[in-house]
Parts: sequence; structure tokens; C-alpha cells
Amino acid sequence: MAKKLLLLNGPNLNLLGTREPEVYGADTLADVEQAAVAQAAQAGAELVCFQSNHEGALIDRIHAAKAEGVGAIVINPGGYTHTSVALRDALAGVAIPFVEVHISNIHKREPFRHQSYLSDVAVGTIAGLGIEGYRLAIDFMLKKL
Amino acid sequence: MAKKLLLLNGPNLNLLGTREPEVYGADTLADVEQAAVAQAAQAGAELVCFQSNHEGALIDRIHAAKAEGVGAIVINPGGYTHTSVALRDALAGVAIPFVEVHISNIHKREPFRHQSYLSDVAVGTIAGLGIEGYRLAIDFMLKKL
Amino acid sequence: MAKKLLLLNGPNLNLLGTREPEVYGADTLADVEQAAVAQAAQAGAELVCFQSNHEGALIDRIHAAKAEGVGAIVINPGGYTHTSVALRDALAGVAIPFVEVHISNIHKREPFRHQSYLSDVAVGTIAGLGIEGYRLAIDFMLKKL
Amino acid sequence: MAKKLLLLNGPNLNLLGTREPEVYGADTLADVEQAAVAQAAQAGAELVCFQSNHEGALIDRIHAAKAEGVGAIVINPGGYTHTSVALRDALAGVAIPFVEVHISNIHKREPFRHQSYLSDVAVGTIAGLGIEGYRLAIDFMLKKL
Amino acid sequence: MAKKLLLLNGPNLNLLGTREPEVYGADTLADVEQAAVAQAAQAGAELVCFQSNHEGALIDRIHAAKAEGVGAIVINPGGYTHTSVALRDALAGVAIPFVEVHISNIHKREPFRHQSYLSDVAVGTIAGLGIEGYRLAIDFMLKKL
Amino acid sequence: MAKKLLLLNGPNLNLLGTREPEVYGADTLADVEQAAVAQAAQAGAELVCFQSNHEGALIDRIHAAKAEGVGAIVINPGGYTHTSVALRDALAGVAIPFVEVHISNIHKREPFRHQSYLSDVAVGTIAGLGIEGYRLAIDFMLKKL
Amino acid sequence: MAKKLLLLNGPNLNLLGTREPEVYGADTLADVEQAAVAQAAQAGAELVCFQSNHEGALIDRIHAAKAEGVGAIVINPGGYTHTSVALRDALAGVAIPFVEVHISNIHKREPFRHQSYLSDVAVGTIAGLGIEGYRLAIDFMLKKL
Amino acid sequence: MAKKLLLLNGPNLNLLGTREPEVYGADTLADVEQAAVAQAAQAGAELVCFQSNHEGALIDRIHAAKAEGVGAIVINPGGYTHTSVALRDALAGVAIPFVEVHISNIHKREPFRHQSYLSDVAVGTIAGLGIEGYRLAIDFMLKKL
Amino acid sequence: MAKKLLLLNGPNLNLLGTREPEVYGADTLADVEQAAVAQAAQAGAELVCFQSNHEGALIDRIHAAKAEGVGAIVINPGGYTHTSVALRDALAGVAIPFVEVHISNIHKREPFRHQSYLSDVAVGTIAGLGIEGYRLAIDFMLKKL
Amino acid sequence: MAKKLLLLNGPNLNLLGTREPEVYGADTLADVEQAAVAQAAQAGAELVCFQSNHEGALIDRIHAAKAEGVGAIVINPGGYTHTSVALRDALAGVAIPFVEVHISNIHKREPFRHQSYLSDVAVGTIAGLGIEGYRLAIDFMLKKL
Amino acid sequence: MAKKLLLLNGPNLNLLGTREPEVYGADTLADVEQAAVAQAAQAGAELVCFQSNHEGALIDRIHAAKAEGVGAIVINPGGYTHTSVALRDALAGVAIPFVEVHISNIHKREPFRHQSYLSDVAVGTIAGLGIEGYRLAIDFMLKKL
Amino acid sequence: MAKKLLLLNGPNLNLLGTREPEVYGADTLADVEQAAVAQAAQAGAELVCFQSNHEGALIDRIHAAKAEGVGAIVINPGGYTHTSVALRDALAGVAIPFVEVHISNIHKREPFRHQSYLSDVAVGTIAGLGIEGYRLAIDFMLKKL
Repeated sequence: MAKKLLLLNGPNLNLLGTREPEVYGADTLADVEQAAVAQAAQAGAELVCFQSNHEGALIDRIHAAKAEGVGAIVINPGGYTHTSVALRDALAGVAIPFVEVHISNIHKREPFRHQSYLSDVAVGTIAGLGIEGYRLAIDFMLKKL
Repeated sequence: MAKKLLLLNGPNLNLLGTREPEVYGADTLADVEQAAVAQAAQAGAELVCFQSNHEGALIDRIHAAKAEGVGAIVINPGGYTHTSVALRDALAGVAIPFVEVHISNIHKREPFRHQSYLSDVAVGTIAGLGIEGYRLAIDFMLKKL
Repeated sequence: MAKKLLLLNGPNLNLLGTREPEVYGADTLADVEQAAVAQAAQAGAELVCFQSNHEGALIDRIHAAKAEGVGAIVINPGGYTHTSVALRDALAGVAIPFVEVHISNIHKREPFRHQSYLSDVAVGTIAGLGIEGYRLAIDFMLKKL
Repeated sequence: MAKKLLLLNGPNLNLLGTREPEVYGADTLADVEQAAVAQAAQAGAELVCFQSNHEGALIDRIHAAKAEGVGAIVINPGGYTHTSVALRDALAGVAIPFVEVHISNIHKREPFRHQSYLSDVAVGTIAGLGIEGYRLAIDFMLKKL
Repeated sequence: MAKKLLLLNGPNLNLLGTREPEVYGADTLADVEQAAVAQAAQAGAELVCFQSNHEGALIDRIHAAKAEGVGAIVINPGGYTHTSVALRDALAGVAIPFVEVHISNIHKREPFRHQSYLSDVAVGTIAGLGIEGYRLAIDFMLKKL
Repeated sequence: MAKKLLLLNGPNLNLLGTREPEVYGADTLADVEQAAVAQAAQAGAELVCFQSNHEGALIDRIHAAKAEGVGAIVINPGGYTHTSVALRDALAGVAIPFVEVHISNIHKREPFRHQSYLSDVAVGTIAGLGIEGYRLAIDFMLKKL
Repeated sequence: MAKKLLLLNGPNLNLLGTREPEVYGADTLADVEQAAVAQAAQAGAELVCFQSNHEGALIDRIHAAKAEGVGAIVINPGGYTHTSVALRDALAGVAIPFVEVHISNIHKREPFRHQSYLSDVAVGTIAGLGIEGYRLAIDFMLKKL
Repeated sequence: MAKKLLLLNGPNLNLLGTREPEVYGADTLADVEQAAVAQAAQAGAELVCFQSNHEGALIDRIHAAKAEGVGAIVINPGGYTHTSVALRDALAGVAIPFVEVHISNIHKREPFRHQSYLSDVAVGTIAGLGIEGYRLAIDFMLKKL
Repeated sequence: MAKKLLLLNGPNLNLLGTREPEVYGADTLADVEQAAVAQAAQAGAELVCFQSNHEGALIDRIHAAKAEGVGAIVINPGGYTHTSVALRDALAGVAIPFVEVHISNIHKREPFRHQSYLSDVAVGTIAGLGIEGYRLAIDFMLKKL
Repeated sequence: MAKKLLLLNGPNLNLLGTREPEVYGADTLADVEQAAVAQAAQAGAELVCFQSNHEGALIDRIHAAKAEGVGAIVINPGGYTHTSVALRDALAGVAIPFVEVHISNIHKREPFRHQSYLSDVAVGTIAGLGIEGYRLAIDFMLKKL
Repeated sequence: MAKKLLLLNGPNLNLLGTREPEVYGADTLADVEQAAVAQAAQAGAELVCFQSNHEGALIDRIHAAKAEGVGAIVINPGGYTHTSVALRDALAGVAIPFVEVHISNIHKREPFRHQSYLSDVAVGTIAGLGIEGYRLAIDFMLKKL
Repeated sequence: MAKKLLLLNGPNLNLLGTREPEVYGADTLADVEQAAVAQAAQAGAELVCFQSNHEGALIDRIHAAKAEGVGAIVINPGGYTHTSVALRDALAGVAIPFVEVHISNIHKREPFRHQSYLSDVAVGTIAGLGIEGYRLAIDFMLKKL
């Protein structure tokens, strides 16, 4: 069976490329997702994408991933990083290994962004490397699958 | 008019029986809900069930309960226990007495699980008694109605 | 082009007039929204209203406001005031100036209500002046547009 | 051998029924203990009761329970809940499973009552359900024995 | 008897229009006070103004207001907002309803400005709306008198 | 019926006059108690004394005071001041007004002595005035009875 | 030379008898001061009184006391208790022994009232005993002089 | 006169050898006490032993030690380490030098065990060396006497 | 135009030379001020001095300095260092560069003296160098003017 | 001129492959360094390696890198991550962009490992991805140079 | 093979006997080390000594100990106790059991000395027993080897 | 014997004049050291200089100063200010009076720079006055020797 990855993006990441480009860069979410699909395909894997501003929709999507046989998740949880125990529980509940990615360097920003409800249940984290962070996380996960 | 109860379950409780069974046991949510309905019926009361991973959907359901004449709520708020002021406000806003139930002993777990936005507006709390907690809370509420 | 404002109300504000009237007064949300529309119209501006108990829906609505050319937002974020980084990011992301309004005096209430994720990205805040707060905030924004 | 339970009550619970009845209800400790003995008897189990205002006496009693073959403890530790590491160590030391019961909802009261030295070594906790809490805890323990 | 309001300004507000105009705007305190007097007069009310850099003088003035039959106070306590229990006690002592106004958005500034000794005894607060905040607060108080 | 007062002294106060006399003075507990009895007698009241190093014994004594018709308590809780919720509950439970006395100025000593579990349920407190503090507290209580 | 005492009252104590009488009683500051003068006179001592809402005026008065040969101070620092290092330094600087008095029980009130900048440089403190606290403090100081 | 030592053991140490042997080892308290007596005797000193689960009884025993001419104390305060100001005051009050011993390494355990009310009035502390800790502490004290 | 400096001294510094000479030295404020005037004169600059125990008077003086063309301030804010946001705002408001001087080493003293509301808006700080600190600060400012 | 990178490893990373292999993996530091050199060479860049247990030696090496024209640094600061302001200052001082790498997921470990003195001056961070983290960081830096 | 121990002393312990002898005693480090070597020899073991003021040198020495077959370490980490994660990692990395010794009672000293980065990875700790602490720790380790 | 001073500079100060000149100025460390030597010579004193990025080397140098008869130290501890207990202990251990100098105003910078391990054992501190701070500190020390 083909390896399957899920690329999840949380709230406001649909604004990518339009919102504070000096912080987040000019690439849109569509650009990021297309590149991710291609990167996975090149490694013989399938990658599906999902973005939502709804905490519950992200949780539903994670639950569904279990049934679909997703073997790894790359997630940029956006603002839910710092406030969502429910998202943490969803990821821990399905027990699919995941990498947490942040486009900006959250350690340079407001103190409330320095704390994450996901990091200690993640395999690992990448932050501050722009949209390159997605590529590196997928690269890592493709090797692990 | 018949007594009416609402059994609310928050995020990830749809995974019950499949997620970390050593922590949460092997019974599914459907098992829990069927037992609850039966327990209420035996006492001549009606019990309706609702589960959602969406904070907003839980709030909407609580608002609806007011109109339906629900007299008591038993809620396991899952991860929203620790992060949702909005859920607290919904419960306080409709002024329906409720008991907060947790399947696992939240005091044995991560520090952020030791704090609840609901407990001080609840009638009371039951934690750590497994799915028996639901039965005991319903038992209590049936007596009070 | 006509000036355009958005009046946003967060969770539980649909209960306005029914919930704890000694705290929140007897006017309903419909009353508030009608008065707001009229106030804006009188100043030759358009004001649209939206209320939701869903954090994601509020974020979606803010994103849409950007496309619609909304020039100012008046928001009562309800319980999400204290817990939603995602809402903050949405408002900062679309870069539409906004005023944060609270009907009750949040400084008289529980300590967790004294902290807001929105205030430092808002133009300013009004709290404790009842539903008059909406009128004053709209008055301010109409002058600024 | 018959199942054996111990019902322990800590400081000031001898005042039950006389002290702040609007908080603790009108039933006396004797009422509670008689009901508990009867409840256990009905399930074919033996239940013994002990109350003391002395931290050391409670510890001594817990040690003795081990020798007596007590299989489960239901304890309302009163004010020692928040201050007694020694009581915690006694319960952990004898390794008899126990449920922690509070008559009032400790989460509605002073902040120092929100912290318990016992909860994380207990099976679980019940709080705020009045003297019904004893009945539910015993019900739970009778099933587990 | 005519309605009577008091407009109080605390330390350094005599510098208004000269100090950090990018933060506080170009209007002087005299401008603000004249506009306030006119606004009240238009509503058939009397408004008196007082500014001092002396905590004690502000307290004395509040005490005097009681004797003069002042029915409402609008106060910008400046730096005493964050440090003066005595000012709080004066306002609570005379029991005249008051609105707390800040020209700048104190939530955008240093952490010590996020805490106010007055807010929880005020009717409400307005912050960040520039000198418009005075007008809105007076507007509110004129309606309430 | 004669007015009745109880003078309670907590742990280590039996050492009075022998322990760190530069801090606590040279008078013994017997001296203090005899003077207190005489002071009450002169006002036509009865004063009984009790000292114990046992938290439970102090609680038992307070419970007994209720039955004896004690109308006021003067208590120096010693080290239990800072650690005993049970003692606080006993005093609040019997609802006998009491004054908390400390011989030394606890505010000059270790930080843990700056916090008291009794003060906010006491009528008032006297600290640092040596054994004169007992006399003043009894003087106050004799007037109030 | 006759013994000389100073009775100092801080901000808002001029309102005594008019402000929140259920908290502070019906006696005015004049009543308190007359009683204090008489109490001292009876013991052959001189007592002078001073009240101000100005922190600086209180400090000036304390400095003057040194020159006048004042041997003891009884001070109710009002709101400056919790905020004035300068007052603390003035009292420590002149090295006149003083007792800190509070009419209400500050431990029953807002948390910021639980901390005093004066207590650890005072001889001792009396709180919650109403205006009797002044009498007891003067009584103590008369004995010590 | 012979040197005299007191070996004090606090709550739950009577369970030694039976409670969590993987943490506390298999030796009983009797074993420890016999070895201690022998160790002292060999050095020509007398050592007496006392264990209690009662805080008050430990305090009483410490007071008695003063009268008996005890020159050094070795104490394992068990759970009272972290909660008993009264025990601290007793030890400081009699001014007998003492070493604080813990069998387990309290720094490896729950955070509340990292703080001791006794350590800063002790001569020194030994922790984590099993029951060897008693022997080393007695060895130290025998040399110092 | 001649360079102009202002030497400001806050509360209790009028006691210099009389108060705790072991901490503050034997020189009086007059000595310090005369030396400062001479030091400035020698550099062809004018230095004016002001001391007050009144926070408001210090603020008024700072405001006046702006009009007088004062180019640099050396200030020892005394006890207001740790409590006065208003003083900070005055100094920031007039935008005259200033050096903060403390005679004693505030880092050796009570924790509340370790925090200053002025330091981060000052050019720099000198502490613990006795009255030499004034000379060094003036020396620095004379070079900078 | 060829691109030049520096791979820095801090204290204890010389133990790689030998220390807790279940946490850090079986590859040695030599393995990691050889792979890194090869990876850079393949991209036409030069990569030099340095490891030290000495904070000062790491700082010296960073200073030297400036002179050598190093354009990017990849650093695993080991235990100095959490304690070295000097290392932070060295990296900020030379102003060479760097990525901070941790082999293990520091968010899963002791709380003191959750704070880094380097992260907010880094370009970004990678943690928990094993020695793959080095490869990804170098990959990122090679693209940026 | 002979048992081998390492006695490590951290920064400033080379000053032993010269620095604050009232705190640390008059014995020099050479005295301590000679006694330690003799004590080990008497038990048929080899003990080697090392002192350094360099954190990195201590780490290097610990790494070397592994290769040398050292079976136990006694370490007085001096000031690095409270600041060195790297030292902790070195000791944990080589997995040689160690006892942490402090000559003075660190609990009597500044608060920052109450926290140790080593204690929870040590076998145990001895503090406050002077240089006797070394002897006792070596005594313990000799028995365990 | 000639007076002897030591000028110590900690980590990264070798970069002076090259690193962030807008913060630290354009003078190099050599410039600073030459000026310092000349300043001392003019006062008939000897001044020696030392800079290191190694904490241990700074400690070694301080120890050596004792033997050399150095009578005063001026130290800019750089990043070790905030993290080195060992450096503090070295300075306290040799008991040579020292002044702590910071070129930049550390109170304007990151919060972790507001805390110093040296300040409370220093004679005093100078911060924010640029390299003038060295001159002023040496000026002070030359007068004191």
C-alpha cells in the first residue's frame, strides 16, 4: 500500500501570501500544497491537504485520517497551537506520528506563542524556516514511513 | 411533564473505546449513551445525547436545551474543559444545573488538566471513575430533578 | 464607495436579553443590531451584522470582510476574548481597524476575564457601558472612516 | 471473605448537620454513617466508619485498615485535603484504592481549596454533590471490590 | 437642579498636545476641557474640570465633588491608574459613578499599564480612542444622569 | 449568664518565657493565662485557657467551646497559623467571633509567616505587640460581648 | 518632659463616619481624634493629630515629628499602606517606633490590601477592630513610652 | 554525663520495610532503631528513639528532649517536612542541633517534596542514601557532641 | 546659551546626613547640592537643585525644566523609584535625558527595591557609590551636553 | 568565493552514539560530521565542524567564524541552550544567521529544557527529528546562502 | 579490579580554607583530598581527585572517568550546582552513580542556592555537614561499590 | 606599595567596537584598556587588564588577583552577569571590592538582563553610560583605595 501523508493547516493559513508577507512570505497556501503533493509523489507517496479555521473541523479531519490509513501528519496548527487541548488530544488519540511546523519563528514573537499544547506529543518541531519548514518536515516523514 | 436530561460529550469522546483503552476503557460512546438512555428511562425520565468536536456546536446544543425544557445536564467537556470560557458562559447563561464528568483522573495527568473553566459553575464534579462516572452523575441528577 | 462596517458578536451573545439580564440588560441582540444598522445608515454608511458561537465561523467572517471592503469592525468577542489566538490572528491578518466592546465590566468579574488576546491589536476598547458600548464604538468608527 | 470498606471523615465533619447547613445540608454524620453501613450491607459487604479531627489518628486508622483487610476506602479528608502530605503518604503507603469525596463544590470556594494532596493518588474524586457523594462513591467501590 | 459632571485629569495630562503627539494627538488639555464643557452645556448639564499632578489634590477634589452634588465623573487617572489605591478608595468612598478613560491603548504598552486599580470600581472603561474617549464617556454619562 | 471567653494557644507556646526570650519576652504561658483570667474576672466575665501542640486537640477544644456557650475566642495559633485549613474550618464552623494574636511581628520574619489561614475569617488581628497583644484582644472582646 | 505621641491618618480617613459606615462605623475622624487626645491626656501624655490625603504631606509631618520629640506614632496609612515606599522610608528614617492600625480587616478584602510596605518596619499591627484599634494602639504606646 | 541523642521518625515511617520497598528498602523501623542504638552505644553515647504519626506528639517529644539533656537530634520528618511550621518552631525553640534525613531522594519526587520547612534551621541534610542516611547522620552527630 | 542641569532629589533625601548614616553617609543634602553646583560651574554650566517629598511637586518641577531649557537631569527618586509611573511619564514626557542615581546599593536591600519604574527610560543608572554617584552622574552629563 | 558553513556542537555531544542511544540514536558525532561535510560539498559549499564542552571555546569559535567568512551556522548548543546568555551574545554579535538544532524533542523533557536563550535570535529551530535535524538545517542553510 | 572513585570539586573550592572560614572551615582542599584518598585506600579502593573552575574541564573529566572505569563519583559542584545543565547532562550521560555534597547548608543561604540541576539525577545529597560531608559520601559509596 | 586595580571584561567584550556599534559605540576594547591604564597611572596607581570568554578563566584571574594584592576590581561581566553563580562566588571569595559596569542600559533590554548575580555583592553598579562607565568606576575606585 502506498504511503499516505496528511498536510494540515490551521486557522488563518488560508491567508498565506496575502497576510503580513514580510513575516510569512509571498507564497500562497495553494502553492505550498501543490509543492507538498509533488514532493510526496516524487517519493512514491500520497499526500492529502486540509485547511480549516474551525478547531472542530481539524479534529474531525484527524479522526478521519486514522480510518484512511494516514501514516504521518505534518501540521501547522496556527493559533490553535497555543490554545487547543482538544487538538492535542485528537492527535494523541489517533496515535499518528506528526511534525509541528511554524512558518515564522514563534520564539521571536509574543510570549503566549512560546508555549505549544502539541510539541510534547509531536515527534518534533520546525519553526522559523518559512514555508521551507513544510518541505523539510515532509522530507523527514517520507524517510520515516 | 417528563423529566428531561441532556448528556453532552465534547471533543474526541467519539473515539471512546478505541483511544488509549488502558486509560479510557473499552466501552464505546454508543455503549455509554445507550446505557444512559436506559438508566433515565428506568427512572421515568428522558435523556438525549449529543457529542461534537466543535466548541460552537456544543454551545448551540446547550442553548437549544433551554428551549427544550432540559432540566439537567451531564457533561464531559473533554479538552474544552481547560480552554473554553465560551462553554462556561453557555452553561451559566442557560442556568441549567449540570455535573462535570471526567473518565480519567485528571489530577494524575498534565498540570494543564488540573484547571477547569466549568467546575466552579457546575453543581459538582466526578473524575477518575471511568464510564461509571456517567452513571453516577445521571443517578444524582435523576434524584434532584 | 459607501463606508462599510461590520458588527461582530461572539459566543452566547445570541442570548442577549434572556441571559442574566441584571448583568447584560433586557435588549436582545436583534435590538442591538437594528439600532446599529440605523446608526450607520444615518451617517451614510453600511453596517452588516454577524453572530456566531463558532470560533471558526467568526474567523471566516472576518476573512470575508476583507474582500467585501469592510473598513472598520466593532467586535464583542464574548468568551473567545480570553482564549482565542486564532481570532486575534484573523483580525491582525486582515488589518481592518477594530474596536473591542464588552457589555459588562470585565474588570469586576473573574480574573481570567481581565486578560484579552485582542486588546493589544485593537484600536481601542470599551467595557462596562452596557449596550451603549456598541453605539459609542460605532460612533467612533464612523468618524474615523 | 466478606468485602470490607472504610469510610473516613476528617476534621470538622463531626459538625455535619450543625455547621453552615446551607452549605453542608442538615444530615448529621451519624445519619451519613448509618446510611453507608446499610448500603454496604445490602451489597453483602462490611463498612466501618471513623472520624477524627486529628491528622495522626486518621493516619493510624489507615494503617490499621491494611491489617484488617479493608479493600477500599471512601474518604472526605476535610481541611487536611489541602495541607496533609502525611495523609497522602499513608494512603499511598497502604496501597488501598480510595475515592476522595467533598460535600461542597470546592471549586466554588477559596483558591486554596482547589488544590488537593490526595487527588492524584486517588482512584477518583467526587465533589459538590452533597452527602450523595458518599453514596455514589460507596456504590462505585462496591462494584469494584 | 442641573446635572453636574466632573472631568478629572491626572498627572502629565497638562502636557497634552506637547508630549509624544504621535501617541496622544495634538489637542491640548484646554481644547479637551472646552469641548467637554460645551458638550455638557448642550445637554443642559454643567461640567467642571480639574487637572493635577498631585495624587492628594485629585483625592481632595473628588471629596469636594460629593459636597457639590456632582453626579458623574469622567477620569483619566494617568500614571496613578496603576499605582494609586488611595485614588480608588476616594472614588469608592464618595460613591459617585465614574468612567475611566485612557487616550492611548494601554494594552499595547508596557505590562504594568495593563493593570488598573480603578477599573473594577468604575462603571466602565474606554481606552485607545484618543481624545474621542472623553467625548464618548461624557456622552454616556449625560444619558445616565 | 456570665460572659465566657476562651484563650487558645497553639504549638510551642507552652515554651513561652523559655524560648528565644529576645523575641517572645520572659513571661511564661502561666503568667499570661493568669493575667487573662484576672482581666476577664475584673470585667465580670469568665475566661478559660487551653494550650496544645496538637492541631486536632485545638479543633476539639473549639468544638467544645460552642457547647459551653463561649462567646468570644482569643487565639494565638502559633505555627498552625500558616498551615491549618482544619483550624480555620473549626473556627468558622462554630461561628464564634475571634481575634488572632501574634506575640512577635510576623511581617518581620520569614515570608511563609506573612500568610495566615485564619485572618480573613477572624474579626481582626494583633501582631508584634508582645504579650500585651493578648491583653488588648481580651479588652476588645470584653467590650464586644 | 511630657511623653508625646502623634496620631497620623492617611488618605480618605477624613471621610470617616460618612464613607461606607457598614465597613468603617459611624464615628467621624474628629470623634476619633478627640478620644485619642483625651486618652493620652489621662495618661499624662500629649497626643497630636494629623490627617492628609497627600503622601508628601504625611512624610513632611513625620519628619517634623522627629524635631518635636515625638516618642511614638500610631498610623493608619489608608491606601498608602500598599503603595508607598516613601512613607516607609520616612518612618524608618526618623526611627520613631510606630503601630500600624487598620479599621477594617484588610485580610477580608482585595488581595492587594494583604500586602503592606509598613508592617515589617512597624513595632506591630492591629487590624479589623474598628476604631477601637486606635485606642488599643495608643494604650500600648502609652505603656511603652 | 553521657552524650544523649534522639532519633525521631515522623508519619508513616512505622511502615518502613512494608511500604513501597523498592523505594524505601526492606529494613523495618525496628531494624533501623536497633542499629542506631548500637551505633551510639559503641561510641559511648545514649540514643533514644521515637516515632509518631501525630505532629503534636513529635512536638511534645522534642520539648521533652530539652529537659532530658538531649544534645543532638536526627530526624526524618516524613510528610511533615513539607507542611509543618510547628515542627520547625519546636526544633528551633529547643535549640538542639539536628540533622534532617530522608531515605529517598526527595529531589526525584513530586515538586512539593523539594521544599522543606526544616532544612534552613537544621545543621544539615542527607537525602537519598536509604537507611544508610541515618547511620551517617548519627556518625556526624556523635563526632560533634 | 549656558548648559543647564537639574539635580532632583525625591522623598526623604532632605534627611541625608541624619538618617541611617552608616547607609547614606554623613554629608547633608545641602553639602551635596553645593558640591554639585560648584562642579557644574567649573565646567561652565548652570545646575539647579530641587528636593521634595511630594510626587506631584517633583512632576511639576520636571515640567518646568522643559520650559527653562534644562538639557540634562540627574535624579535620585528615592522611594518613588519603585512606585511612581507618574514620575516616569513626566520624565519621558519632557524628553530630557536623565541619569538615575541611588546612594545605597539597592540590589543589597529589600526585593521591592530591585525594580525601578525609571531605569528603562533613563540614559543609565548609578547605584551604591554613595554621594559620589551624584558627582559621577553630573560628570557624565556635563560631557554629554 | 565558496559558501562556508560552520557546524557547532556543544557539551556532551561528543558522547553521541554512546550516551542514552534510545534517546539520541546510535550514530556518533564523527558520523554526523562526515555526513554534514559531504552534504555541503555536494552543494559546492565548505562546511567546518567544531565541538566543545567549554562555553568559552564555543564563543571563541563563533568569533573566529566571522573572520573566516562563514555565512551560516548550524548549532546544537546542548545544555548551554538553557543557560548561556554569553553564547547568545556571541551569535548575535557576529550576526551570522544560524539554525538551532536539537536531536531529542526538548518539549518532552524537563521543564528547564523548554526555554532557550538562543531561539529568538536564531533564524529558526528544529527539534526532535534525531540527527536528521542536522541534515535538514544544513539543507535549509545551503539554499539560503 | 580495584574499585575506583572520583572526587570532583567545582569552582572556588580551590579556595577552601582561605575563603570565609567561618562558613567553610579551615581545612584546605589538599587536606580534604588527602583524607579522601586515605579513606578509600583503607577500604581497598582507589580514589582520584580533580578540581577546576572551568565547567568544560569538569565535563571533560567526567567523560574521561567513564573510560577509566570509575564506579562512583562524589561531587561538590560549587556554583555550577545552580546553573549548569551541561554538567547534569555529563553525569547522566556517563551513568556513573554520584553523591552531591555541599559543605555549607545551602538551604540557609540565598534562594538561588536552593535549586540544583544535579540533585534529581544524583543518588542522593549531603549538605551542611562541613567537610565531613565528603567523608560520609565516600563512606556511602565505598559500601555500595 | 602602589595601589593596584584589575579591569575585567567578560564574554564578547573583545568584540567591542565591531559588534552592534549603535549599542556599544565604536571604541575597541584596546582603546578602553589603554585609557584605563593611563587614568590609573595619572593617579599613581597600577591597573591591569584581562578579558576572556571563558567563565573559568575569569574565576582563575580573580583568584590570582588576591595573591597579587589587587585592591579593587572594575568588572563588566557581559553575559555571565545573569548566569554565573561561580563568578559571584569567586568575587565574594577573594573579598576584593568591585564595581559592576555595563556599557548599555540593561534595563532597556530583555528581561533576563534585568537580573544580576553580582550586583548584591558589588559595592555598586553603573549601567548605560557607554564606555564612560569604565572611566567613572575607575575614578570611584581610585578615590576609595
